[in-house]
Amino acid sequence: MKFIAEINVMPHKALLDPQGKAVEHSMPNIGLSTVTSVRIGKHITMELEASNENDAKEKAEIACKKLLANLIMESYDFTVSEVK
Amino acid sequence: MKFIAEINVMPHKALLDPQGKAVEHSMPNIGLSTVTSVRIGKHITMELEASNENDAKEKAEIACKKLLANLIMESYDFTVSEVK
Repeated sequence: MKFIAEINVMPHKALLDPQGKAVEHSMPNIGLSTVTSVRIGKHITMELEASNENDAKEKAEIACKKLLANLIMESYDFTVSEVK
Repeated sequence: MKFIAEINVMPHKALLDPQGKAVEHSMPNIGLSTVTSVRIGKHITMELEASNENDAKEKAEIACKKLLANLIMESYDFTVSEVK
């Protein structure tokens, strides 16, 4: 069975996010002065073969832990859905 | 009213995504040889003040079009939800 994993990797809330701050400070220039707390991370989509949904979740978890997220600085969450 | 916007900015499907390809080629090294079609984009969260949900969506749309996404190379989607 084929699954699609949608993964978000975000900087920890306790850490500074300079990229997000830069974007936040630019918002008034495009007329959006009420925007705050901008944080920027990565969005990753991938397809994977797995025997069932739990297996797919396990594989996505491994990919996040070992490769996609730096757990010192980032946290991740993901959803997995079957491709029909 | 305060809203949170969750925005995904992804490279167009027709375009090469070298960062995604690099990750894809690394997957067999961590035991995940069935992973394909890895694509990597940005995930952005931000808080904004708006009078209602439609207003919040409009503001998120402006932020995407004018600042967050390069529409030549990227597409975006977002969800907006009220902070209670």
